[in-house]
Amino acid sequence: MKILISNDDGYLAPGINALAAALAPIADIVVVAPDSNRSGASNSLSLDRPLSVQQAANGFYFVNGTPTDCVHVALTGMLDYRPDLVVSGINNGPNMGDDTLYSGTVAAATEGYLFGIPAIAFSQGAFGWEHIDAAARHARDIIVQYMETLPAPYLLNVNIPNLPYEQLLPPVATRLGRRHQAEPVIRAQDPRGKEIFWIGPPGATKDAGEGTDFYACASGRTSITPLQIDLTHRTQLDVLAKALA
Amino acid sequence: MKILISNDDGYLAPGINALAAALAPIADIVVVAPDSNRSGASNSLSLDRPLSVQQAANGFYFVNGTPTDCVHVALTGMLDYRPDLVVSGINNGPNMGDDTLYSGTVAAATEGYLFGIPAIAFSQGAFGWEHIDAAARHARDIIVQYMETLPAPYLLNVNIPNLPYEQLLPPVATRLGRRHQAEPVIRAQDPRGKEIFWIGPPGATKDAGEGTDFYACASGRTSITPLQIDLTHRTQLDVLAKALA
Amino acid sequence: MKILISNDDGYLAPGINALAAALAPIADIVVVAPDSNRSGASNSLSLDRPLSVQQAANGFYFVNGTPTDCVHVALTGMLDYRPDLVVSGINNGPNMGDDTLYSGTVAAATEGYLFGIPAIAFSQGAFGWEHIDAAARHARDIIVQYMETLPAPYLLNVNIPNLPYEQLLPPVATRLGRRHQAEPVIRAQDPRGKEIFWIGPPGATKDAGEGTDFYACASGRTSITPLQIDLTHRTQLDVLAKALA
Amino acid sequence: MKILISNDDGYLAPGINALAAALAPIADIVVVAPDSNRSGASNSLSLDRPLSVQQAANGFYFVNGTPTDCVHVALTGMLDYRPDLVVSGINNGPNMGDDTLYSGTVAAATEGYLFGIPAIAFSQGAFGWEHIDAAARHARDIIVQYMETLPAPYLLNVNIPNLPYEQLLPPVATRLGRRHQAEPVIRAQDPRGKEIFWIGPPGATKDAGEGTDFYACASGRTSITPLQIDLTHRTQLDVLAKALA
Repeated sequence: MKILISNDDGYLAPGINALAAALAPIADIVVVAPDSNRSGASNSLSLDRPLSVQQAANGFYFVNGTPTDCVHVALTGMLDYRPDLVVSGINNGPNMGDDTLYSGTVAAATEGYLFGIPAIAFSQGAFGWEHIDAAARHARDIIVQYMETLPAPYLLNVNIPNLPYEQLLPPVATRLGRRHQAEPVIRAQDPRGKEIFWIGPPGATKDAGEGTDFYACASGRTSITPLQIDLTHRTQLDVLAKALA
Repeated sequence: MKILISNDDGYLAPGINALAAALAPIADIVVVAPDSNRSGASNSLSLDRPLSVQQAANGFYFVNGTPTDCVHVALTGMLDYRPDLVVSGINNGPNMGDDTLYSGTVAAATEGYLFGIPAIAFSQGAFGWEHIDAAARHARDIIVQYMETLPAPYLLNVNIPNLPYEQLLPPVATRLGRRHQAEPVIRAQDPRGKEIFWIGPPGATKDAGEGTDFYACASGRTSITPLQIDLTHRTQLDVLAKALA
Repeated sequence: MKILISNDDGYLAPGINALAAALAPIADIVVVAPDSNRSGASNSLSLDRPLSVQQAANGFYFVNGTPTDCVHVALTGMLDYRPDLVVSGINNGPNMGDDTLYSGTVAAATEGYLFGIPAIAFSQGAFGWEHIDAAARHARDIIVQYMETLPAPYLLNVNIPNLPYEQLLPPVATRLGRRHQAEPVIRAQDPRGKEIFWIGPPGATKDAGEGTDFYACASGRTSITPLQIDLTHRTQLDVLAKALA
Repeated sequence: MKILISNDDGYLAPGINALAAALAPIADIVVVAPDSNRSGASNSLSLDRPLSVQQAANGFYFVNGTPTDCVHVALTGMLDYRPDLVVSGINNGPNMGDDTLYSGTVAAATEGYLFGIPAIAFSQGAFGWEHIDAAARHARDIIVQYMETLPAPYLLNVNIPNLPYEQLLPPVATRLGRRHQAEPVIRAQDPRGKEIFWIGPPGATKDAGEGTDFYACASGRTSITPLQIDLTHRTQLDVLAKALA
């Protein structure tokens, strides 16, 4: 099995190192990841400047671009083979509900899926990298046990509680929850007296009920949400079609 | 009516200028847009640095950030009121099918929708700004005629053919089409001999049949696709839930 | 006379607009300036990515690069003629003493000088653009009256007090003063709890005695310092040469 | 002895790794360097955004900023002591003549010197890192043998031929040479048809005669140029003072 690994925290992050170490025994792995932290990058692609690919001492490739750039470049010319799986992460902190729209971790996996390759995004439920090796081992278990469960290609969004390996329970299938709107922007002044704005924290959860990814993680369970990328709103499409007819 | 206008081509682009000029007679408008071209920015948010907001001579506000940053900052503290509508564009070139995932134009509208506000992304079907004033007038017509058609909030993705105003026909409701995978990355050398990679062009259309946005635009019609943002794959969720039970 | 105008505050800044307006009646001018604020850019050149040049509605060209990039691109291929003079500014705030090393305004002029063209960097003695039109008119006077005084090429660093035109006195020739070391870095936390560092303010003046640019400006006079760019330390060179002999 | 080490090729570059390894046995070293390649950064300072400092597995600190930012942050608050020496490099390729104005390697050392600390910038005479370990050992020799030769503080610019250690001769004291103006900008098109400009190569040497850094390196000798940072042009100052009197 050949696995392409990327992330949005950058190729130096503990999460991608743990994931690569956990997957190396079961697959031919290649890491192509951003040269620095690109959290919040979503599916952004660098169209107005060229990218460069370099190789670090540990064999990881790093790119001066976004997570999507990394997977895109790997799949459209850099690699001379087609991976069997694209995995992304393990992200520092959760990617659940609406957050998935902004997530570079999910975007890296999405890019693989757009090329017809099964893809899994892994995130830890809490920030700080605690128990990251356990999360990586658990991620490997999920790949080994469930990668044939769904018809290929699929796109899975996995959030793993920060717990010791022994306390990690079998995953549950979830839908994405929803958040309330984001907290206000944080106004401040830079040291030269100029007004600046920091993006504020995400909003509180609005739909975190049973069946959601928020609910699963809050219950100490690993959440797996199968994703799709057709944004068409089918119900509204019918309404609109009638109105425009 | 209060309308917030943004885009991804930057606040100087002809598209946003034409759109603002067309909407000013029918609404109180405010423009908050990126300081430079951010095409391909998707829903990326700037989390690791502060943003600054400046006002140009024509009254437009510009932000050193992404389209999503612009709408986010406007809605979470910069504006002291809640707009009735968020519009984005008019983009230089189409945003159809899978391209919507990467589009900063669509992302700006999506950010408004995430805050519960009706939002419309406008794009021209071909690059080059030809007939941009006609497109802007047509965009106004769509807002005036159809903004009450769907229950609020909604998120519409509109692609307008580059045609004289007289030749623009009533819009049709569409679903998103699909593309084949992207063309290969373009390898080159910079003048110092370093290997560089340019992201290649999008793939050819795979699903451009009747009912799609690709089909509508190819037929010379304005396409309106209602979008939603729940990426959960419902069918696969059932399969996975059974497998994990 | 043909004059190339650049700056480091960006092509939209009031200072470059005032300067262009003041010089247009006496010369064929062309403006090639950064697309956004590049204060503190020093002589930095963009070597790892290509630059693009766009033209604004008012005829100004803007470049997604540094002040040095702008003048470099203009002089090595963009312009089909060789300007008689390169001017930079008018900068928002002073560029005196050691600050000249960091200044993008001075760097833009330096780049012209490196190509053998007389070059003048203009800055206002205080921040805030007060009396910028007076400063621009005064800058024109200096060019008209003194541009033949020194053998070409020369590189002049001019700081103009923020005063009404009637109160601006004839300029004085000065040497660069010196500052004490910079104030401490400002530690803070971003809203996500990450430690961040802001570069602190410049240090107090150490050599601001009579004859320096600091002294002239503090006395309400316009300061003109002729600059050179050979950094060789002649005295120490002799000492070192003996030691190594 | 406490030595602060920085560079402009980024903290992962072979040059800084070789230099740190060579100096660790003779001093307490700390490395604070840019997170990525910042060649051509000159003395640029990041004033409009905060910086973050992270520590790599090997103990090196890296900063999302310029070489000058790195030394500035280290000396104004990050380090709780004052280093005895600031060294920069070893740069990939030469920094001689006018190139020193653009060099981030020289700028990092200059920043130390501005804080009153002896500082040395090291570069290799040719690109490609050949014999980098020999260059690092040779750099250590220079520090050990000559760091007391000049009164502190001083600022030295050292260029070392890419040769095996045994072939490296004692250094010679030099003045900076001069180059002819740079080669033309390189016009190209990006894959989307947009015109782009790459900064071209430096010009040929104009003053590379005996006594210059160019001459020394061409003769296979290590060049040491003592630098100063007062850009005042003394001769022209007298001329101008008379004209303005």
